[in-house]
Formats: sequence, C-alpha cells, structure tokens
Amino acid sequence: MTLSAQQTIHHRSSTFSPELLSDGRVAFRLTAPDAHSVELTGDMLPEREVTTEHGTWKMAGVVALERKENGVWEYISEPLPSSYYNYNFILDGVRITDPANVYTVRDIASTFSLLIVPGGEGDMFAVQDVPHGTVSRVWYPVCDKQHKARRMSIYTPAGYAEGSERYPVLYLLHGMGGDEEAWLGLGRAAQIFDNMIAQGRMTPAIVVMPNGNMAQEAAPGESHEGLIHPDGRLPRTMDGSYEEQFIDIVNYVDEHYRTIVDADHRAVAGLSMGGFHSLHIAQYYPGVFGYVGLFSAAVFRGDATKSEVYRDTDKRLQDLFESEPKLFWIGIGKEDFLYKENVDLREKLDKLGYPYIYHESEGGHIWRNWRDYLVLFGEQIFK
Amino acid sequence: MTLSAQQTIHHRSSTFSPELLSDGRVAFRLTAPDAHSVELTGDMLPEREVTTEHGTWKMAGVVALERKENGVWEYISEPLPSSYYNYNFILDGVRITDPANVYTVRDIASTFSLLIVPGGEGDMFAVQDVPHGTVSRVWYPVCDKQHKARRMSIYTPAGYAEGSERYPVLYLLHGMGGDEEAWLGLGRAAQIFDNMIAQGRMTPAIVVMPNGNMAQEAAPGESHEGLIHPDGRLPRTMDGSYEEQFIDIVNYVDEHYRTIVDADHRAVAGLSMGGFHSLHIAQYYPGVFGYVGLFSAAVFRGDATKSEVYRDTDKRLQDLFESEPKLFWIGIGKEDFLYKENVDLREKLDKLGYPYIYHESEGGHIWRNWRDYLVLFGEQIFK
Repeated sequence: MTLSAQQTIHHRSSTFSPELLSDGRVAFRLTAPDAHSVELTGDMLPEREVTTEHGTWKMAGVVALERKENGVWEYISEPLPSSYYNYNFILDGVRITDPANVYTVRDIASTFSLLIVPGGEGDMFAVQDVPHGTVSRVWYPVCDKQHKARRMSIYTPAGYAEGSERYPVLYLLHGMGGDEEAWLGLGRAAQIFDNMIAQGRMTPAIVVMPNGNMAQEAAPGESHEGLIHPDGRLPRTMDGSYEEQFIDIVNYVDEHYRTIVDADHRAVAGLSMGGFHSLHIAQYYPGVFGYVGLFSAAVFRGDATKSEVYRDTDKRLQDLFESEPKLFWIGIGKEDFLYKENVDLREKLDKLGYPYIYHESEGGHIWRNWRDYLVLFGEQIFK
Repeated sequence: MTLSAQQTIHHRSSTFSPELLSDGRVAFRLTAPDAHSVELTGDMLPEREVTTEHGTWKMAGVVALERKENGVWEYISEPLPSSYYNYNFILDGVRITDPANVYTVRDIASTFSLLIVPGGEGDMFAVQDVPHGTVSRVWYPVCDKQHKARRMSIYTPAGYAEGSERYPVLYLLHGMGGDEEAWLGLGRAAQIFDNMIAQGRMTPAIVVMPNGNMAQEAAPGESHEGLIHPDGRLPRTMDGSYEEQFIDIVNYVDEHYRTIVDADHRAVAGLSMGGFHSLHIAQYYPGVFGYVGLFSAAVFRGDATKSEVYRDTDKRLQDLFESEPKLFWIGIGKEDFLYKENVDLREKLDKLGYPYIYHESEGGHIWRNWRDYLVLFGEQIFK
C-alpha cells in the first residue's frame, strides 16, 4: 500500500540529475527518448559573446548533451569549483528547468535549476549543520495611495526567539525586477547569515529585506494581483517614494523587533537599483544608518523633478558624511556596465575627502558578485 | 540603459501562458518551433484510467496542443470552474513545467505549474486584498539522536504582531512525502486562513505546520543534507517517534507565542499520514487537543512493537473521548483508497457511542479535497 500524497500518479523517470561525481565533475542528464536535441546552458560553462543590433553581450555558454542508452542524454562537466550555479536545459529548442531537479529559482520572469557544489566557497551558500535563523514574510501597514500593507522578508538570527537581547539591523535591498524574495532566493542570504554568524565572521543581526517596487504590495504571486506574468515594468521604483517612506519600515522594525535603535547598529545595503536606493536613503536620513553598502550600484542622480529626495544631492552627500558613518562600502565588477559610474562616484568622494572602502572584483553585473559582496560587507558591519 | 538584475541575458519568448480568456476558457501555450509534439496534462482535464500490473489507476488526462503560427503551440480549454489547478506540458515526450509560468509547486519529487481560476471557489486559495498573516520558518531545538533542531512553518494571523491578545493554535500535519512546506505550497494554507479569517468564517488562530519525517531536520533543500533528490523514502515517519516528541513542539509554541494554553484552544489535524499522526497524537495526549481532524486519514493501527504509542489503542481512544473533545472530524473522498479504513473507523466510533462529524466528498486521495476539508474544519474550530 502506498500513502504517497500525489494528486495524480506519475511514472517519473529515475533520472539522476545533476549528479556530483567523486572527482568534482557534474553529470547533467535528461531522459528524452523522442528528443532530437538537448543542450545545457548555465554559469558553469565558459561565457560566449553574442552580438545583436543592441550591442555585444556576454551570455552563458551552451553545450550539447550526448545521447546515451535508454533515451538518456548526458553531459559531464569539467571538475567544477565549489560554488553556486544556475542552469537550464534546452530541449528541442525550448529552455526548460531540469525535470529531475526540484530546486529552482526565479529571476524576474526566468526560472533556473539550482546546483551547489560543496567543499569550498559554495559551502557559504548551502544549508550547514549550524544554528539557523528564522525567516518570516511580514506584512507591514503603509499609508500609501495604492496599498494598505506591503510585504517584506525578515531574518532573525538563531537564538532570537529564545533570548531577550537586542540586535543591530541590516536593511538589504534588491535590484530592478527583484522583490522581497530576491536576496533569499538568488542571494542565498539566510544561508550566508547562518553560516557567517556560526563561523563568528558576522555579528548576529536582524536582516530586513523589503520590496522596493512601490507599485507592488508584494512579490509576483504574493499580491492580490494574482499569478501575474512578471515583466520587470515597475513604474514606481526610482521616483523617490520608496526612499520617502523608508523610515516607516525602520520604525515598524524598531517597534516590533528587539533592535538597537541607533546609527551604529543600523546598516543599509543593496545591489544595482538597491545600491541607488541605499545611497539615497542614507543621504535622505543622515545619522540614521552607520553602515552603507553599494553593490554594483546604479549611482547616477535621480530625477529631481520627481522627488525632493533627488534634489540637492551634493548637500545630502555632505550631510551623510558629516554624520560620520562607520563604513561606506563600494563593490563593483570590472566588467559591470555600471563600472564608469562607480569610478565617477569614487573620484567625487576622493575629491571631497569622504572615506570609503572599495572592492573591485572580476566579472559583471551578476548575482555571483552580489553574494560575495554580501559576505565581505557582512564581515565589516556592527563590529 | 537597463538595470535588470540578470545573471545572463535571456531572449525569453513573449509567450503568454496560461492566459485566462474572458469567457472562462484558458489558453495554454508553448513556443517550440522545433518540437514535434506538445501535450498538456493536468487536473483541469477529464481523468483517464490506466491499467498496469499494479492495478487500475485514475490519472490526469492528456491533450495535444495544436501547432499555430510562429512556432507557438496552443490548447484552449473548455470554460474552467473557478479553482486551483496544477499542470505540466509534455514536450517531445518529456514532462516539463510551463516555461512561461513562473509559478510552480513541488509534490515530493514532481514539479507542477500552478493556475488559479478566480471568480468562485478558487478565490479561497488566491491572495486577496485582505489583512495577511505572517508566515515564518522556525527552527526549534530537539533532543533527538539525529538532529539538534528541526524546522517548522508557523502562521500568525494578521494583527498578531501589533496586538497583545492570545490565540488558539491549530497543529496542521502533512502526508507521507510531504514536509513543513506542503500545506503552504500545495495546500495554500496561508491564503485559506487569511481569507477565512477576513470573511469571519474562522476564528483567528496560530497555525503550526511541523515536519513529520523524523529522519529529516527540514524539507528537502532546507537541511544540511544539501539539494537532495527527494524520493519519499522516509524511514522514521510511522515508528511512534513523532507522536512521542510532539509535546515538545506544543511546549515550544506555548513558550514562544501568545497562545491560549488549554484543550479548547488547541486543534490537531492532518491529511493521509498526517491524519494517522493526528489520531495517535490526540490519543497519546488525551485532554491536550480539543479538536481533531482526520483528512483522508490512514487510520490503520501502527506497529505496537515499534512504539508504546501504538499499544493499547482501544484504551487510548477511550481516554481521548473521555476527555470530551469538542470536535472529532472525519473527511474522506468516495474514491479514496483509504475509504474502507475510514468506514471501519466510523463503525467503531458508532459502536462505542463516540461522537464525530463526518464529511464525504467526491474524488480520491487528492489535494483538492484536503484544501476543501481544511476550509470545512477551519469553520468549526475554536468557536
């Protein structure tokens, strides 16, 4: 007798994919007896350059799987360094997730299969046998024309529920097309914090991951708009309204969590558009955040006609540095399309004598960098 | 300039699928110019009977998509009643999720695309514009040979964080192959509670969804075993150890949440194996749970050689009913493979004069029934 809670009976193939082989190679497999072509694409493959009318882009590489016996197609990689990887199969021309791998992650409207190769840097992004924080999806009330409440993700460190002490707070912001799920999914933030705290590399902290798209109350599928098709068209992301209401989030967190309520125990950091938001939030509320992190930040000036947040930004930057933040951290990849803006920002800070820490990595505007930057930034806050 | 936070640049097709048409039909589409066959399977299609050496099974129907222009394949359904549906495409013989639909749900080792048709009963399972509860993934410490902590999902109703009142608690248990994610994913429990509470159909309550697989510390992918291939082989699910340690979960919840600490404000309910667990937990701790719900329960006796939990079950059942639970609720589908066991259970209760409420539905051992049973049970607890 079976008790399997299946809505329908599936004769799911016993394909094992991806399989980590003992020598560090990874076997990717798809059972597809009737297919005429199966390919793999993912960030474990060498990038290729593709030129279109819009310019030249680096794209993930593509390799063919080989047809083996019994309708199984297979590709065995070179030994892969320990890391976090995303991939898709291309089955007769259609990009799909690996049906044998139940772990997927969404980036805007695309869904990828997930692979973590352990034994090195990938371990930071994997669940380890260490104390775990609690992750909650919390709705907080807002005074907004469009919504009554908005959703955010909150990480409280291991021991929070059992103890009575107060904690510092990191506000961690997503990029354009992201939402309150982005740092938890693609960013592996809960695993990073669990592991860094367990290793003594990060001070235990509450981490607040809000939704920076003011036209949304929550991530796609989590709002009453229904199971919408996410398309990245987000009209209220850089109009100043997020920065203006950000203090409501801080106040909500200070009221409902055991926080330490001062700048030395508050950090704000974000990737890409979230770096833009972090900069403007830190400038707009000088003396509120003692640590600021810009990860591949879009540091161009906002539109001053849309919001006072983007007016007098030189004066606001001055106010920020006069509040003497303990850390102003900039991270960017050499190939990032926002590299030049970050050079300009550093020149400006240098000219004005404002102190900052700069980290330049390989690569471009990619999650691999943002996960690394979170580790590097996390080591330096609340010390 | 784009700020899209994409790890790689995808020329994702603009296929729109699934599309709810104005007349209630649904268009399912896949862009696959090179495919030779595209089919749809899902619970919106009439079931078909499949006979194998193991017997005759009802399985989800299969229909072919039609090849249209520009490589797009399409199937337009009959008008679909408002409900929650799961489906897959079969592309050249391979079962895949719909690449144009980012909403997927996992059932053990299978992944399905999700569709909710609004405008009727499906609305109960959709996010509505109502106050929302908070959903947390919580690790609680355990004294167990295998693990130091285990993971559970906890729903606190809207207003919990802002208020000071105490709440009743529903312990909601998954079936075999499920875990602490099952009721939230396939079960749409958070949406059901939000909607029922907003409509005044359910008393606001804390809902605790533990992991009943004692060999796991957490759902697949959420434990330090890594991104394992879930296979439903769960050696410690019905050996009595879950029931024996269940009081530790209750004590943890009573210590860390604002609960009302008496039987009139505690319910335990579960589906399939979770119904088995609910019955044995209620029997093993008579007077602790005032409401018991068995949803398509596996009510056969456990192995008394494995645990005292399964010894003297007639006496334990007597103890349970002598504690005068306010509700003992049984729900089962006419086609459920566990139907006969539930007939036997009712005969036994009738013979002993133990009161219960019985609900018989159409259909078999399926999530559609369990979502409905949760609504029916939820209406009757804590009144």
